[in-house]
Amino acid sequence: MQYLINGEKLTAGVCYYPEHWPESLWKEDIGRMLSHGIRFIRIGEFAWSLVEPREGEFNHDFFDRFLGLVRETEMKVIFGTPTATPPAWLTEKYPEVLNADIRGNIFRHGSRRHYNYNSPVYRRKCAEITEVIAARYAKWECIAGWQLDNELNCEVSNFYSEADSAAFRTWLRDRYQTTDALNEAWGTVFWNQTYTSWSEVYVPRYTCNGANNPHQMLDYYRFISDSCRSFAQIQSEIIRKYKKDDDFITTNGLFGHLDNHAFRRQSLSFFTYDSYPNFSNQTGKPVDENGLRDRWWSRKLAETRSVSPHFGIMEQQTGANGWNIWPGVPNPRPGQITLWAMQSVAHGADFISFFRWRTAAFGTEMYWNGILDPSGRDNERLAEVGAFTEILTKISCVAKEHCLADVAILKDYDNVFDSEADAWHSQIEQASMDSLFTVLQKTHTPFDYVYFYEGGISANLHSYRVIFYPHPLIVTPERIRVLEQYVKQGGILILGARAGCKDHTGRCVTKRLPGLFAGLAGADVKEYSFLQPDQPEVLIDWDGEKIPAALFADRLSGEGAGDITGRYVSDYFAGDGAISVNRCADGCVYYYGSAFSDAAVEAFLRRLGVKEPYADVVTVPESVELAVRGPYLFLLNYRRDACSLHFHRPVTDLISGAELSGETALAGYGFIVADMSRPA
Amino acid sequence: MQYLINGEKLTAGVCYYPEHWPESLWKEDIGRMLSHGIRFIRIGEFAWSLVEPREGEFNHDFFDRFLGLVRETEMKVIFGTPTATPPAWLTEKYPEVLNADIRGNIFRHGSRRHYNYNSPVYRRKCAEITEVIAARYAKWECIAGWQLDNELNCEVSNFYSEADSAAFRTWLRDRYQTTDALNEAWGTVFWNQTYTSWSEVYVPRYTCNGANNPHQMLDYYRFISDSCRSFAQIQSEIIRKYKKDDDFITTNGLFGHLDNHAFRRQSLSFFTYDSYPNFSNQTGKPVDENGLRDRWWSRKLAETRSVSPHFGIMEQQTGANGWNIWPGVPNPRPGQITLWAMQSVAHGADFISFFRWRTAAFGTEMYWNGILDPSGRDNERLAEVGAFTEILTKISCVAKEHCLADVAILKDYDNVFDSEADAWHSQIEQASMDSLFTVLQKTHTPFDYVYFYEGGISANLHSYRVIFYPHPLIVTPERIRVLEQYVKQGGILILGARAGCKDHTGRCVTKRLPGLFAGLAGADVKEYSFLQPDQPEVLIDWDGEKIPAALFADRLSGEGAGDITGRYVSDYFAGDGAISVNRCADGCVYYYGSAFSDAAVEAFLRRLGVKEPYADVVTVPESVELAVRGPYLFLLNYRRDACSLHFHRPVTDLISGAELSGETALAGYGFIVADMSRPA
Amino acid sequence: MQYLINGEKLTAGVCYYPEHWPESLWKEDIGRMLSHGIRFIRIGEFAWSLVEPREGEFNHDFFDRFLGLVRETEMKVIFGTPTATPPAWLTEKYPEVLNADIRGNIFRHGSRRHYNYNSPVYRRKCAEITEVIAARYAKWECIAGWQLDNELNCEVSNFYSEADSAAFRTWLRDRYQTTDALNEAWGTVFWNQTYTSWSEVYVPRYTCNGANNPHQMLDYYRFISDSCRSFAQIQSEIIRKYKKDDDFITTNGLFGHLDNHAFRRQSLSFFTYDSYPNFSNQTGKPVDENGLRDRWWSRKLAETRSVSPHFGIMEQQTGANGWNIWPGVPNPRPGQITLWAMQSVAHGADFISFFRWRTAAFGTEMYWNGILDPSGRDNERLAEVGAFTEILTKISCVAKEHCLADVAILKDYDNVFDSEADAWHSQIEQASMDSLFTVLQKTHTPFDYVYFYEGGISANLHSYRVIFYPHPLIVTPERIRVLEQYVKQGGILILGARAGCKDHTGRCVTKRLPGLFAGLAGADVKEYSFLQPDQPEVLIDWDGEKIPAALFADRLSGEGAGDITGRYVSDYFAGDGAISVNRCADGCVYYYGSAFSDAAVEAFLRRLGVKEPYADVVTVPESVELAVRGPYLFLLNYRRDACSLHFHRPVTDLISGAELSGETALAGYGFIVADMSRPA
Repeated sequence: MQYLINGEKLTAGVCYYPEHWPESLWKEDIGRMLSHGIRFIRIGEFAWSLVEPREGEFNHDFFDRFLGLVRETEMKVIFGTPTATPPAWLTEKYPEVLNADIRGNIFRHGSRRHYNYNSPVYRRKCAEITEVIAARYAKWECIAGWQLDNELNCEVSNFYSEADSAAFRTWLRDRYQTTDALNEAWGTVFWNQTYTSWSEVYVPRYTCNGANNPHQMLDYYRFISDSCRSFAQIQSEIIRKYKKDDDFITTNGLFGHLDNHAFRRQSLSFFTYDSYPNFSNQTGKPVDENGLRDRWWSRKLAETRSVSPHFGIMEQQTGANGWNIWPGVPNPRPGQITLWAMQSVAHGADFISFFRWRTAAFGTEMYWNGILDPSGRDNERLAEVGAFTEILTKISCVAKEHCLADVAILKDYDNVFDSEADAWHSQIEQASMDSLFTVLQKTHTPFDYVYFYEGGISANLHSYRVIFYPHPLIVTPERIRVLEQYVKQGGILILGARAGCKDHTGRCVTKRLPGLFAGLAGADVKEYSFLQPDQPEVLIDWDGEKIPAALFADRLSGEGAGDITGRYVSDYFAGDGAISVNRCADGCVYYYGSAFSDAAVEAFLRRLGVKEPYADVVTVPESVELAVRGPYLFLLNYRRDACSLHFHRPVTDLISGAELSGETALAGYGFIVADMSRPA
Repeated sequence: MQYLINGEKLTAGVCYYPEHWPESLWKEDIGRMLSHGIRFIRIGEFAWSLVEPREGEFNHDFFDRFLGLVRETEMKVIFGTPTATPPAWLTEKYPEVLNADIRGNIFRHGSRRHYNYNSPVYRRKCAEITEVIAARYAKWECIAGWQLDNELNCEVSNFYSEADSAAFRTWLRDRYQTTDALNEAWGTVFWNQTYTSWSEVYVPRYTCNGANNPHQMLDYYRFISDSCRSFAQIQSEIIRKYKKDDDFITTNGLFGHLDNHAFRRQSLSFFTYDSYPNFSNQTGKPVDENGLRDRWWSRKLAETRSVSPHFGIMEQQTGANGWNIWPGVPNPRPGQITLWAMQSVAHGADFISFFRWRTAAFGTEMYWNGILDPSGRDNERLAEVGAFTEILTKISCVAKEHCLADVAILKDYDNVFDSEADAWHSQIEQASMDSLFTVLQKTHTPFDYVYFYEGGISANLHSYRVIFYPHPLIVTPERIRVLEQYVKQGGILILGARAGCKDHTGRCVTKRLPGLFAGLAGADVKEYSFLQPDQPEVLIDWDGEKIPAALFADRLSGEGAGDITGRYVSDYFAGDGAISVNRCADGCVYYYGSAFSDAAVEAFLRRLGVKEPYADVVTVPESVELAVRGPYLFLLNYRRDACSLHFHRPVTDLISGAELSGETALAGYGFIVADMSRPA
Repeated sequence: MQYLINGEKLTAGVCYYPEHWPESLWKEDIGRMLSHGIRFIRIGEFAWSLVEPREGEFNHDFFDRFLGLVRETEMKVIFGTPTATPPAWLTEKYPEVLNADIRGNIFRHGSRRHYNYNSPVYRRKCAEITEVIAARYAKWECIAGWQLDNELNCEVSNFYSEADSAAFRTWLRDRYQTTDALNEAWGTVFWNQTYTSWSEVYVPRYTCNGANNPHQMLDYYRFISDSCRSFAQIQSEIIRKYKKDDDFITTNGLFGHLDNHAFRRQSLSFFTYDSYPNFSNQTGKPVDENGLRDRWWSRKLAETRSVSPHFGIMEQQTGANGWNIWPGVPNPRPGQITLWAMQSVAHGADFISFFRWRTAAFGTEMYWNGILDPSGRDNERLAEVGAFTEILTKISCVAKEHCLADVAILKDYDNVFDSEADAWHSQIEQASMDSLFTVLQKTHTPFDYVYFYEGGISANLHSYRVIFYPHPLIVTPERIRVLEQYVKQGGILILGARAGCKDHTGRCVTKRLPGLFAGLAGADVKEYSFLQPDQPEVLIDWDGEKIPAALFADRLSGEGAGDITGRYVSDYFAGDGAISVNRCADGCVYYYGSAFSDAAVEAFLRRLGVKEPYADVVTVPESVELAVRGPYLFLLNYRRDACSLHFHRPVTDLISGAELSGETALAGYGFIVADMSRPA
């Protein structure tokens, strides 16, 4: 059985860089970690040169000594492959391993993630170092698992090297066989882009006005995803040869241009996320009264849960995050480390590894603060981490429970990638996704993200009563069939503007809209337009209720099989259909011809009876997040000020064992984990 | 006699891309066009690979089939040369044909206009493809005219390739003969830029702080203009060899770094403009109550009229404009297609070709909406286009009439180019031009732009009572003579700050200011300075009226031959001359020592008796544009709301034949074309 | 004895470019200069091609003729070496002399300062031209001194050429001997940056996210400083061989990435500064009621005084400054030329050379206005310059007096350079430095900057009663010893947040903070954090007075030897120490755990009795600057409006000889120089 994410316990870890500190500190450090409840350390993920200081010269002294010391303790180790930062000797000798920007300017040694995934040399070198490390240490008892590379696709997720163009050509030939087929798929007849030879095809390059073929872009993002996955798979296959049966393989962080679901299935035991809610200080978003600035991280945690229903946090924030070139931000305030870690647990994390033991004394991340400051003196953050690990023990029953939700938001990588290449798409997608998250959060309505990914779907749709699939411009017949099944068996599917307007190449369909969705949705879009930015609010009358449209207006003709239940009442298209519903066996499909405003989301949740499912248990202010794992209720206060909850029936505080009932105070940055199944 | 712009009728067309659609749709498409009053289609301008799929392999199947089908109908064709988008095989084999940015980063295949004008290879290839197409199709009856390339100098109008440097050297040797003469003209003794060999001379390159020699920049813009013209001339000369006598040659759009007047004379029958007033949604300018955001396009139309007194619109907006990488904007609202097309007619367009028949289903411009959406279903925009072509028929008497104006704004390419290389120049130029346009529009005072171009002047100055020549920093003795003639015969010339301060090289004169204008203007500028940005308003007393100065203050000494009629009354230079007038035979010259504020323009128009010349015919709100072609009055309402006009004498509505008299309503986005010569 | 900066007189000069004007104007120009009190001209600093028009061909005609004419007058000449602008033939033949940006894009001929300091070819060519010029003219009587290059490190102070990487490797080998030592110093174990060979080491290069190793950056700035100094030293050594004994060597301007103090000691007789307070129109800062926008230049003048207690102004603004690519700004208003020149004198300038005689008629700087406009006609600015030179004569007794101050602000190049590589550092440094300057200015408290530089300290610390050393993150044991001496002998030292947290490599210390300062300051920082940007004001209670903290909070434990005298009274760290004082023999050290707000600076000045030392002499509004040289009081009014002063005891107006006493008016842009030592 696996060491982490095993349904039996919640576990704490820490990221540690023995190479940053005198060997004389190692023993004391590990002892202090253990005495503060930390049972796992992640090491090694940037340490290539320690193992291969010169090409082909392998040296195991360092990790032999460090792991030798570790194995005298009960500490377990997650070993990171060091491929995110190639050694100086490697990039100097083989500059073809480096990535470049779109102008061709090469990214040089000294930062990280400056390599490309497709250079044959780099793939070979990475396989070698992985094999050398895995062969040496995989059988050691203290090793519990492996991390592949570090934050794949973080910071840089576009690749423009020559190796990438060569690999892209191969990828395209596999997909299209002939340049004629490629020309058709990419619509190269537009602007005379027609290719007559594969050698004329490249990854996107520097062009006038930054315009690249949008269908090429869509394939390019798919190609990056595949490149990243095949790069990582080389390592996972090597590690699988050597690792002990119960040891796991994971990677950390959740980044773009990557089908994380397919990746997990292909190479990983489970996912781990790196959670830094303090980045809210760098987003430029204003502090809002509902704490949504930090709660935003719950989106990413829900995304991670979609990839991996139970997951870990490899890097949970403990101090101010900062590179030397970034303006300074504050440390977490007392309670925030715990609050944010509990946010992770509430969303499905069973493993919380803090970043990092002690703040580095040098390098780009010397202000990416850890638990301790560089002096190592005891401090408030260490005390808070220690207290947190005790809490984890008290709530370990949570580990066997899954997050529960009646509502899902459906996504798929085709549309995620397409929206990057298509500003119309991204504009409505972002607005709708923001409103969905905001309203689901404020109304305390738990939800999941569900993904169509390459080769499958990430969850059983039938477990959800309502599914929002906001703007699936691209859809395939297979997916239509899956959705039809869902609806026929009683599901409620909600589509938004522009659904079905594209095919799998990102080309617009020449059918009437909503294209492939026309049958399922029973809608007919006769005209469509973005709304005038300076226009007075455009309202939809939905059975007497006025709802503001957002950004876009699909105008429904009424010729579809569904019923028009909402009509525009503003502007020159007043009277045209805005919302239709198509009943289909036990379920139904709503077509909502706009982007989702907050009010539209609220109306759908309310009318479909899925809003605030725990209103009978507890009344909580908008500013408090509510999350549910099995019978366990998580209530998280992101504000500095205390607030008041009201329990309508008694529940049990899982930590204190006390009964909670009626008016109950929740401290600033405080949290409650309550068992709804048994009163105290 | 020519097919278009013939003084006999107003004609409608549409842009069509047969290569984007199944051949099975062609016949139906042409039929629908004809049934909606469309008589011309523009095709071919990006279709190089269809004719030459591989180097030297020419294939006529596609256009033989398409034109074969067209010639069975009454539709006429404007054939575009496909040189704006070289084939992939061409740029891959001959990368020297590509343009680059100033850092030397090459623009690659996949967008458009990535070629340079000066590569000998590209000139040869373009000549070949033009010859092949013209030789094949020029005699076909269905062909009516030719478009050269597409939107020359659009998007990219700077060129930094090696071919450009080589051609620039040749251009400079022709002009200057010796490096000594070049050094003198460019003032290279400044910062030790002296050239000792032609091989040291380049087009502007990447320098510290982006500083390039301003006189080099001025010559560089002239060189770009000449390069573009000679590039296009190769094609026009080939087409002339083959075309039928009545067929025309044109090009589309009006862009920078190009002496369009010389270009037209050299290579074109007339000009066509591409009019997209909906771009106002992308300029970031606020919507103003007078609709000036869209009316701004009247400036460009007036500029086009200067180049070509009667002209066409090759691309008249019908749908939302957008590339896949631009944020979405709305479709034109009902009436706006008609309003904007009528704006074109009011300013001198006799041909309106809509862009485009059907929205492309793929490529960068898949959101550059046409009349139809990709499904091709009938829609509101098609109905509006159909109605518009009927209107065109009803007002075809307009075609024989010229636009009329008493006021002209004089420009010349030397100063247009100089203001790009000179931020002082551009600052005052832009402010004055904005105020002139705004006030002339709001006061319903028709005006023309008149240009000095290489080798001539675009109109007879004597037809104007008042000419504003706002900031001619550069002036030549020849132009002084032309202006002197104008004034002597009764004209009124108004000069603004900085006039005459430079010579033809863009170097400052070392004479007293206003330099070459000193005699004609009779002014003497003793000191000059930009105004303090934080300064309270600086006022000029002009015979008791207070006018605010703008941006700059030339301080007149009173030593000139003219009379000081306005003096500063603010700040430390209160009492110094601000406005002088120099009487000269029947006319006079005003020297106005500042940039033109709105109030200054209004005062000049009022005092010189040229403001609101149709005030005796009709009173219209500021928000309505008034334009005049012969006896025909155009009134255009750019606002969403209806407004009220008042006719002081009866005129005839040209479309309905009804008499208009007294209080008359004008619908939102509505227009009136009235015949002032005969009451109904 | 030297011609300038000799303690005997104040002198006026002007910058002149004979090569920009017809030879026929030279004599008249020099005559007009002399008749307006100008005694020195600076020439030659961009005139390389005039002397070496082709490689190795030297030609002395031009300067023989010009200097031949000069020596018939009493005018003296400062000759600039022309190395800021290499000839076209040089950069074309030896492109390796050019600098590049971090992406490797090379800066080309046509601007200035496009060369690098480390190319062996360029060093040799610069030595040659310097030797040729010095050998020819150094003995001429009319030569008074030499200027090295022009504005070293202006505009561009980063260097990325291959020659720079080669030189950087040599510089690093000298410093570190082995790559192991380099790896240790730069902390390359972070992100696997370890170097195994010197050939892998470069100047900073283009990396992902613009992240370069911060310790490499620190060394890189030191290297740039050393490169610049050794480049200039080649010229100073050549000139020393030829120059007459009394002739001086200087350079102009004060720019970054340069240890100006070490530079002056190594190569220069004294420093000259280029003063353009009108740049305030380009900083985007709002005009404030206290004129601090222009007074800001007093900071730079005080910095220059630190380098050179008496100094010159090589370029004192007379007209609007502008390149052709910059938006226009106004000319100085009447009185401002004089005011700003007097500001220079007040801060220690004994030589005022105006820029420039006549505005250039061409080139990038044709709007960098001189005294005269290009026509050369007499104007107001020339009259003002003439009047100013008469004033200089009347106040020449000032020349022997030094500026006086009780307060110093201590700086050092390690921390100046480190703050560029460290955004945390720069954020608090900039805030504190701004508040210090603002409050010292507004309270009329004269101060000096004092620098630790490579190999010394720029002033005797013991002459100051109070020294602010705001944020010396880096400190060395040697500097601790110097400061300890200062304090033991009665000095008061004030340290701010983060003091002592780094070592000489810019790596964080792993001691308890404030690191090496712990003993001297007697403070112990137990926790630290930036303040929350959205946080309500954080207050410190300092013996009952509430002072706002700024940006950062060091929280003092009380475990240090010093006394906690101020405690935070806000937020979660209320009660923690914020200010400590450690008495040490006759002096004491304050540790202030935040950045300095205006209120904090005011409180320190007030409590330590150094605020407003001339309050007994005169009461002046905040908007008037007060400066002191010996017994001479300078009062400068930067506002447009007149204001009122009040003299509490009679002083003598140095220009009129009149007694000033009681209520006294000071005109807008006016000034007073008063002798405090003797009543009239």
